[in-house]
Amino acid sequence: MAKTKIQQTAFASSSAEILGLKAYPSVIAVPGKIDSAVIAVPEAFVAGVLEECGKKGIKGVVLITGGFSEVGKVEEEKKIAAIANKYGIALIGPNCMGVLTPASRVDSVFLPIYKLGRPRVGGISFISQSGAVGGCIVDLAARAGIGMSKFVSYGNAAVIDETDLLQYLANDESTDIIVAYLEGVRDGKKFLETAREITKKKPVVVLKAGRSALGAEAALSHTGSLAGSAEAYKAAFRQANMIDAATLEQLFDFAKIFDQVLPCGPRVGIVTNGGGMGVLAVDSLEDESLQLAKFSDETNKLLRASLPAYANVRNPLDLIGDADSHRYEIALNAMLKDEHVDIILLVILFQTAAIDSSVVNIAIRASDLRKKPIVAVCTGGEYTEMHKRILESYGIPTYSSPSSAMRAISRFHAYSVHYAKYNNTACAVPLKKQK
Amino acid sequence: MAKTKIQQTAFASSSAEILGLKAYPSVIAVPGKIDSAVIAVPEAFVAGVLEECGKKGIKGVVLITGGFSEVGKVEEEKKIAAIANKYGIALIGPNCMGVLTPASRVDSVFLPIYKLGRPRVGGISFISQSGAVGGCIVDLAARAGIGMSKFVSYGNAAVIDETDLLQYLANDESTDIIVAYLEGVRDGKKFLETAREITKKKPVVVLKAGRSALGAEAALSHTGSLAGSAEAYKAAFRQANMIDAATLEQLFDFAKIFDQVLPCGPRVGIVTNGGGMGVLAVDSLEDESLQLAKFSDETNKLLRASLPAYANVRNPLDLIGDADSHRYEIALNAMLKDEHVDIILLVILFQTAAIDSSVVNIAIRASDLRKKPIVAVCTGGEYTEMHKRILESYGIPTYSSPSSAMRAISRFHAYSVHYAKYNNTACAVPLKKQK
Repeated sequence: MAKTKIQQTAFASSSAEILGLKAYPSVIAVPGKIDSAVIAVPEAFVAGVLEECGKKGIKGVVLITGGFSEVGKVEEEKKIAAIANKYGIALIGPNCMGVLTPASRVDSVFLPIYKLGRPRVGGISFISQSGAVGGCIVDLAARAGIGMSKFVSYGNAAVIDETDLLQYLANDESTDIIVAYLEGVRDGKKFLETAREITKKKPVVVLKAGRSALGAEAALSHTGSLAGSAEAYKAAFRQANMIDAATLEQLFDFAKIFDQVLPCGPRVGIVTNGGGMGVLAVDSLEDESLQLAKFSDETNKLLRASLPAYANVRNPLDLIGDADSHRYEIALNAMLKDEHVDIILLVILFQTAAIDSSVVNIAIRASDLRKKPIVAVCTGGEYTEMHKRILESYGIPTYSSPSSAMRAISRFHAYSVHYAKYNNTACAVPLKKQK
Repeated sequence: MAKTKIQQTAFASSSAEILGLKAYPSVIAVPGKIDSAVIAVPEAFVAGVLEECGKKGIKGVVLITGGFSEVGKVEEEKKIAAIANKYGIALIGPNCMGVLTPASRVDSVFLPIYKLGRPRVGGISFISQSGAVGGCIVDLAARAGIGMSKFVSYGNAAVIDETDLLQYLANDESTDIIVAYLEGVRDGKKFLETAREITKKKPVVVLKAGRSALGAEAALSHTGSLAGSAEAYKAAFRQANMIDAATLEQLFDFAKIFDQVLPCGPRVGIVTNGGGMGVLAVDSLEDESLQLAKFSDETNKLLRASLPAYANVRNPLDLIGDADSHRYEIALNAMLKDEHVDIILLVILFQTAAIDSSVVNIAIRASDLRKKPIVAVCTGGEYTEMHKRILESYGIPTYSSPSSAMRAISRFHAYSVHYAKYNNTACAVPLKKQK
């Protein structure tokens, strides 16, 4: 399939052949209909090539080339936008990396695969004003085993802007979660109105860079964006029920938790094989205004009967450092059944002697029941990372610390409350089901 | 050497041989002098074995066994402590993993190496009340390429407590940075007085778990610690000039930055090959009350003459996405020379096509000059992580986001101001040199 696609790709170039594929002196000379074009010629030639694309009837263009409003050439960028609008071209860019769609393998990202990994197919779509930041996140996702639907690096947004992309992704069936890295917003009112509608159906996680006065200056010379004040943005995002990420880590941490069923409430059941992690988890739970679930009498009875006497049957449930996978199975089954538990925080320390890889299977099976969200915390080196990647690949979000997990859970819970207002549905339903 | 050590190790056991090594029916029966013992027998036998250790004249004991004050058996623990004190035994534990010293390969941590990696030799020493949390951090350090001097998991601290360990590490020549994970503090006044003296010479990074009311309860049932209020601890740590970490990530992030020369001031010079990362870095710099360095005229002139016209010569210095290693060399040399720059934040996005591994060499050479601290930010997947590990192995701290780097830099700068008060030294001196 990939091969067929490449054979349909045409190069407009002064050479007769590139990488064994026929090349043409101009896009006009390419025979047949063309759906979309990627333009990467030097800035001085962009207008001419875009004009030709218009004449050829091409409706989608990714314009990679930089050197427009981000270096002060505002008029040149307006000229490009005018050409695109004249021909009705949906133009992404300039000054961008374009589009990556893992499912169809459409990929205009011009960075090598060994440096920038391509993620598996999944439900997160990500738009990024900055190509560099976008690339990092995509690469991180690829490594962590997180799935993506679409990635769009849209750069200076001369024609298609963040609001257009948001709207597109809202209607895109393969997108469950929308993530955005923004430096500025072209039309604030339109953006917020659009976002407010979208967040009734899909979560939108946003990282706004250029929040500070100095950062705003830096943004202006990067993508030519006029950034607004931090407070104004924060308030606006909140009003539109977007999920505001303060750092790159949070953008990532928040987005991936939404691949779980929505929680029915804020009561977290914690299971761990390391007491210290339980203490840290409870600290973070309190920081994030979540609730520590009180296990039912039945759960306590069951756990006391099934676990060794020295296990600490309370919440956090400490299975003790010699816990094997079977103890986790007992704990997970009990918490899935207990109506006092809305969300399960599963701390697995893979360093301990008795734990083995089969605990991953147990966690994935429990998660596949789609009864309650299960969120994992695993901290460590190579052996731990290997298991985290497997958990992520099967849709269990993993975190390196209780605090980052609890922060994500609190956003997840808050969104689920908001979501319930607009969607007549029982809780514990995956977002996917709603479409 | 390792072999020799193992041949000197003796097992007290009812078998005649364990793993091909001679075993003895009791520690008394072992011929010759014994420096230290590791006790891992069931709780009921601990007192007897410890008594024997005392009679044998053993002065150092690691007591792994759990089941004492953390499960309410306070009297049993007091009895153990009394035996140790009677014989003048420095006892670590109970309920702990004991001691790991990478340089001498002394290692009582009973978890498998493939699960819990052992770090390279370095200047960070780490004491942890929780074995699990301690193990995670050690494992993380091993993977990230961070060096350690000593790791002590001290559990319930029946005899040797956090203050004793702090004092020991303060006098330990191979320890440059002290890191502590605490759930409670035995003698608050003594601890703080000790810490206040130590921080004049060595940085002490501390993570206090059980900060919240619920967390304190969890801590009580974990290591039997009575945790105090979050505010009280925070204020006390600040008074003692300790570096307060709020999360596991920060404990790690803060500790590793101190392997650099101390900065002469708060002015950060930022270099990047991705504009978006520059914007995020400046946002975080403002959050952390650091200063954006103003390059000298000479630096600006030099950079303009040496870099392509489209590079963004300002701070953050954007070398643009097509930057190769040579451009980084120009930038680093200029910033090392510029007296307006105190700290260099080196953002390297390894995803870009033109960058190659040689940039790592350039960064390490620049750092080896020991003129200014160099802190790296690299965000990404496998290819990026590989390069980060090399940077860390050669003492350049690396971070996954500008925000985590800036947070660490602000602690580093604040400590350097404090340090200068007590040490009659020029800045830009490594901590090591002061001992």
